[in-house]
Amino acid sequence: MVLDKIQKENDIKNLTPAEIDVLRQEIRTFLIEKISELGGHLASNLGTVELTMALHLFLDFPKDKIVWDVGHQSYTHKILTGRKDDFDHLRQYGGMSGFPKRTESPCDSFDTGHSSTSISAGLGLAWARELQNEDYKVVSVIGDGALTGGMAYEAMNNAAALKKNFIIILNDNNMSISENVGGMSRHLSKLRTSTNYVELKEGVQSSLEKIPVYGERIVSGIRKTKSSIKQMVIPGMIFEDMGIMYLGPVDGHDISAMLKVFQEASQVQGPVLVHVLTKKGYGYRPAERHPSRFHGTAPFDIETGIPLSHGKATYTDVFSTVMRKMGDRDDKLVAITAAMADGCGLKRFHNMFPDRFFDVGIAEEHAVTFAAALAAGGMHPVFAVYSSFLQRGYDQMLHDVCMQNLPVVFAIDRAGLVGSDGETHQGVFDLSYLTEMPNMTVMAPKNKWELSDMLKYAIAYDAPIALRYPRGEAYDGLQEHRQPIVYGKCEEITVGQDILLFALGSMVKTAEAVCGQLKEKGIEATLVNARFAKPFDAAYLKEAMTKHSMIVILEENVALGGFGEHVACFLRREGYEGQILSIAIGDHFVEHGNVAVLQKELGIDADGITRQILEKL
Amino acid sequence: MVLDKIQKENDIKNLTPAEIDVLRQEIRTFLIEKISELGGHLASNLGTVELTMALHLFLDFPKDKIVWDVGHQSYTHKILTGRKDDFDHLRQYGGMSGFPKRTESPCDSFDTGHSSTSISAGLGLAWARELQNEDYKVVSVIGDGALTGGMAYEAMNNAAALKKNFIIILNDNNMSISENVGGMSRHLSKLRTSTNYVELKEGVQSSLEKIPVYGERIVSGIRKTKSSIKQMVIPGMIFEDMGIMYLGPVDGHDISAMLKVFQEASQVQGPVLVHVLTKKGYGYRPAERHPSRFHGTAPFDIETGIPLSHGKATYTDVFSTVMRKMGDRDDKLVAITAAMADGCGLKRFHNMFPDRFFDVGIAEEHAVTFAAALAAGGMHPVFAVYSSFLQRGYDQMLHDVCMQNLPVVFAIDRAGLVGSDGETHQGVFDLSYLTEMPNMTVMAPKNKWELSDMLKYAIAYDAPIALRYPRGEAYDGLQEHRQPIVYGKCEEITVGQDILLFALGSMVKTAEAVCGQLKEKGIEATLVNARFAKPFDAAYLKEAMTKHSMIVILEENVALGGFGEHVACFLRREGYEGQILSIAIGDHFVEHGNVAVLQKELGIDADGITRQILEKL
Repeated sequence: MVLDKIQKENDIKNLTPAEIDVLRQEIRTFLIEKISELGGHLASNLGTVELTMALHLFLDFPKDKIVWDVGHQSYTHKILTGRKDDFDHLRQYGGMSGFPKRTESPCDSFDTGHSSTSISAGLGLAWARELQNEDYKVVSVIGDGALTGGMAYEAMNNAAALKKNFIIILNDNNMSISENVGGMSRHLSKLRTSTNYVELKEGVQSSLEKIPVYGERIVSGIRKTKSSIKQMVIPGMIFEDMGIMYLGPVDGHDISAMLKVFQEASQVQGPVLVHVLTKKGYGYRPAERHPSRFHGTAPFDIETGIPLSHGKATYTDVFSTVMRKMGDRDDKLVAITAAMADGCGLKRFHNMFPDRFFDVGIAEEHAVTFAAALAAGGMHPVFAVYSSFLQRGYDQMLHDVCMQNLPVVFAIDRAGLVGSDGETHQGVFDLSYLTEMPNMTVMAPKNKWELSDMLKYAIAYDAPIALRYPRGEAYDGLQEHRQPIVYGKCEEITVGQDILLFALGSMVKTAEAVCGQLKEKGIEATLVNARFAKPFDAAYLKEAMTKHSMIVILEENVALGGFGEHVACFLRREGYEGQILSIAIGDHFVEHGNVAVLQKELGIDADGITRQILEKL
Repeated sequence: MVLDKIQKENDIKNLTPAEIDVLRQEIRTFLIEKISELGGHLASNLGTVELTMALHLFLDFPKDKIVWDVGHQSYTHKILTGRKDDFDHLRQYGGMSGFPKRTESPCDSFDTGHSSTSISAGLGLAWARELQNEDYKVVSVIGDGALTGGMAYEAMNNAAALKKNFIIILNDNNMSISENVGGMSRHLSKLRTSTNYVELKEGVQSSLEKIPVYGERIVSGIRKTKSSIKQMVIPGMIFEDMGIMYLGPVDGHDISAMLKVFQEASQVQGPVLVHVLTKKGYGYRPAERHPSRFHGTAPFDIETGIPLSHGKATYTDVFSTVMRKMGDRDDKLVAITAAMADGCGLKRFHNMFPDRFFDVGIAEEHAVTFAAALAAGGMHPVFAVYSSFLQRGYDQMLHDVCMQNLPVVFAIDRAGLVGSDGETHQGVFDLSYLTEMPNMTVMAPKNKWELSDMLKYAIAYDAPIALRYPRGEAYDGLQEHRQPIVYGKCEEITVGQDILLFALGSMVKTAEAVCGQLKEKGIEATLVNARFAKPFDAAYLKEAMTKHSMIVILEENVALGGFGEHVACFLRREGYEGQILSIAIGDHFVEHGNVAVLQKELGIDADGITRQILEKL
């Protein structure tokens, strides 16, 4: 195996051209095998095997720096920097992360996970280099999807001031996670069709064709001139206009072609963008055909590409179904996604109601304000988004939605622990950042039926409202408990005279198990499904205070600023003198690993909670 | 007065051309008079008198919609929609807001305050119109400064999908609040020099001149071709590349020229950008010469332009001085601003250390990640920013700074109540959003000397750290209390046996007054300057718990998720059985008005706090 010759960074430079060619096949086979066993990001990694190899032939590690945008495409980089064997524990608790990590290797120069940060980070490293008179190369690798994120543009706008070399690789596969969208994407498609650096474009659709009336002499004057000039426009003009030199496009599966362009790029005194064309899933047919399904995948059968196990319906599935139903009933319902139509369960809504579906690109800031304005204009917008990505829209939620008290629904998927994606993807801050916003209502369902009821409730509600639900299988227990949703009211599940478990969302299921364990010890607990994190059911709690010697508040969120702090402060203000136990995540980031393992480690699984209760009693 | 004929929206349409010409002078005089008396945004409003008049001649209110980006330039719009008399109480408590407000007039279609939201909002309104088959015009007015914000780009990227009319007015005055920066700005400068729609550009500096080595045949090939083509490039290509039609530039002080272009623009079936050139401060010499000083101004003498009163040194002044000193001592110190060099006190640092100063544009997201990378590269970055604008960087602080535990200093100006700018500018959420972030340290100084000490401490500290200080005059009392800053330790100011006042930052001064009032009632209070909001001084509190029957926690921030909740939860967990009183802002937005008036209304002034303490005792 040529792969065995790669024991550490820069080993790739000792290979012969023939070995290089074998290596790319071996890496691809290795990735398919490992990911088919353990799950992980496949399509993006298969697409960047040659690009990464070319970068490793071009650069010198750990001196030189690569910033991988999002970072899920860094598997080949991990292999080439001596971490091949760690793939046996990829994304498992205590094992190797699926993203770049400075703590994992000196060859990882900047941690990533969320989109569109790489140009900012690369620019910062390049300036640090200049200010300290150091000498190393800095390369940011950004996908065309990530280029729809505003901060990538902010960074490009800021890059022109740098008069020293800084290479931006645009890894253009015409995809974000789903198919890519927007004006920039269309612009890139045009560039993609040019076969070498200088080919002039023809047949560019003139945007002037959109003018129906040509009464003004001057307008028809422009029209003529623009049409003729447009056919001679330089590829990459949009970047050059911002002061960033453009080179490309170049075939991202041709190592020697890339090396040639990288060498050219490294001569530029200033920021330079190299446009590299790759194919997501390259070399594995199922992934080439369904790159979105093989973006982040569970273990699958290599022969067929079919996932090994089909789980039960997920919360995302439930959301998807209800959205389609509600779309039929309410023609003002509109759905918004930031490039996650698939992940958020909006694909079928898109098919059924294409006019009322908006994929705005990886652009959470815009998504939130756009939703606010749709609401101001009389529509009923639902923004479906992952909890950790919604962090990008913090200011817009506060400033554009809550301040104007506009009825936008935030359907927050992947809230709580998400597992193997780790720190950057855990949705454990939303209860803190949402509950501190005036006018915001925050809910969380205990099971699949309640998600359905809450979503309907939220769409009908006339002010900002968020509902958060976890990644993965929807809980299908407690079906018999389905009282109608009443604003700010909790739901009593069982009644016991000793302690009260006041549990939010996913923690209701856990609390159910805790109840069982306590019962075995002779402790009778009241189990309450809080339903609303804001406003929580103060009236119920006031009454319950008098009946229970201990109140346990349970949430899958950090403790600081979370549900538990708010409830605990309320209870004490009201003069509760019993014990209060707040079950939440401590003041630290939570690494990757199986959700059940993480819960256990964090002491928020049933056993851990029961133990804490018994200690306190 | 022609101005008297303007009693409500659309009245302007009844004026003769001669009256229109008089009106623009009268409005300008009116604005100068009112703002010189009461303070407010002058330069931006003087610059947009004719633009606003042209829009009001073109549009039909309240049917048609304008979204004013940032909104501080909406004064003429307020005059033309019947709110002239409300200028007597501009920005005063209970009076008219300095920003658009839907609750103020049906002619205000979307509230603004933070930058770069208008294209997202306009696009949302335009889509709402299309989906409901309504018929009205939507116009977003955005400055060239706001165009450096990423979400403006996200919105433009998303706009191309709209096949119906939507007009974006680019109000280009070559300024954000300070002089504008970045690649886009440079690109606009080029456009600005073209005198009519179709003039072809010459002498554009080829970015290829940056290549020092021309060894490769192909590179010199590009070079030749690009240079010749660059001279024939269409103005506004960067917008057209994204699918947005470009019209302009047009003189923003020539009403009839603008009307003509607006009519043309309204024929376009799709998004269209009209490039309007204006001059900030137009028609008032002092403001034309010093647009940055007259951005938001205190009352001033009309004759000379000189402010009526010179206050004492502000916290911003103190920050400015210390930064210059530290810049001398530490050559790794770098300062970053998001287009607020003046407001944040970095102008002199810029002059002294131009290489270590970065104005990244109105781009807080980029600023934070850029700072993180500078830190990762070995520099000591300080990002100086207003509290409410830092909300834009929430995800980046959490994801890029805290997760990697990088030593970035956040110097948070305008923290707490800011006064007359109102809801959108109050810095009352930062203690909540900062303290919920793992690895983040949060401090607040009690007076000017402590800001100096804390800033030095923060620059030397080796992990993420934030210090927040208020707008306006720095407190110069308590000079004798200047113990060295010790990590996580508070400072005892006075000792009393009855109650403990645990006050953070600006509230130490207030608590001092409370102490005095309590003394008159025979109550002896211990006054503690908390210094650290995170980690707060748990050891001190544990000791103090045993000595005081009441602990009062004071902060200028919302209660939810704030300092008080964290401390109160801690005290109860530790078994404190005395009274706890948390002084903070309730769960609502805080409107504009004088800070002292607002504090009184909110019950967080000395009188209000003393009253609450006495009630509780």
